[in-house]
Amino acid sequence: MSRLDSFIRRLEAQRACLNNAAQLIAAVPGNVLEFGLGNGRTYDHLREQLRGRDIYVFERNVAAHSDCIPPSDRLFLGDFLDSLPKAIAQLGQETALANLDIGSGDEAASKQLAREMLPAVLQLLKPGGVLISDQPVESADLEALALPAGIKPRRYFLHRRR
Amino acid sequence: MSRLDSFIRRLEAQRACLNNAAQLIAAVPGNVLEFGLGNGRTYDHLREQLRGRDIYVFERNVAAHSDCIPPSDRLFLGDFLDSLPKAIAQLGQETALANLDIGSGDEAASKQLAREMLPAVLQLLKPGGVLISDQPVESADLEALALPAGIKPRRYFLHRRR
Repeated sequence: MSRLDSFIRRLEAQRACLNNAAQLIAAVPGNVLEFGLGNGRTYDHLREQLRGRDIYVFERNVAAHSDCIPPSDRLFLGDFLDSLPKAIAQLGQETALANLDIGSGDEAASKQLAREMLPAVLQLLKPGGVLISDQPVESADLEALALPAGIKPRRYFLHRRR
Repeated sequence: MSRLDSFIRRLEAQRACLNNAAQLIAAVPGNVLEFGLGNGRTYDHLREQLRGRDIYVFERNVAAHSDCIPPSDRLFLGDFLDSLPKAIAQLGQETALANLDIGSGDEAASKQLAREMLPAVLQLLKPGGVLISDQPVESADLEALALPAGIKPRRYFLHRRR
């Protein structure tokens, strides 16, 4: 499989996870948290799939397409670990969906970041809320959900908060 | 359609064009020219689809995945317009497939670059050879071919050299 094939497969898996999560929270009111804006493609997709939801974006440096930049009052700019306490203070536990798309080239550092973020993310995520992550996460508060058909195990991780 | 949807569609169209072109040149011996290496995904795909062919890459600044960097004797480093005369001197008219993936954010500049490159590309491309381009190209030496099914017209341009 070429890098082009594998990239297409990864994007399709990501879209399938996002669409699946959007269905899973259909009966769960609440906001949406996007960790890692990147070029804004995922944010744009969530915005389209979850019209009417408040979407808050966490990003260190905004470098997205100009039409995919969230309004400034929906943006937590800076280090995720610095922003999370502010988000908890501002939003409470009202999140229906959190998407952690935080992997960098450094696998160990990405896993470590997910571990460090998780307690705060769980303070934001309400019971019944869904967590998508590109890094493995583990907590007694999380129930693992099956990935959509055709997605390679451990490419994404899908959980529901108990 | 979200930016994620449209990006996936663009990559799928690109792959369909590459695979189609690989079939179209099955009976045409010759080398392959890749204009624009980028992160190397397309190069990797061509390498996989066209095993045994010499693939020459034209790139201004190499910034690809380390396993997608062509050998130095297959790389024309620098401005396309500077490299093309060197390629003609070195390779003659022995190209079975040329892939012009040269679009930048600046549409007018990309079209202009394709126009400027085309005469030299046609000196490299042998009769029966195929040209894939992400920019419109026009020449009495080129016969337009139908795009693979499902690809939006003018997303890519497929021609065979008369």
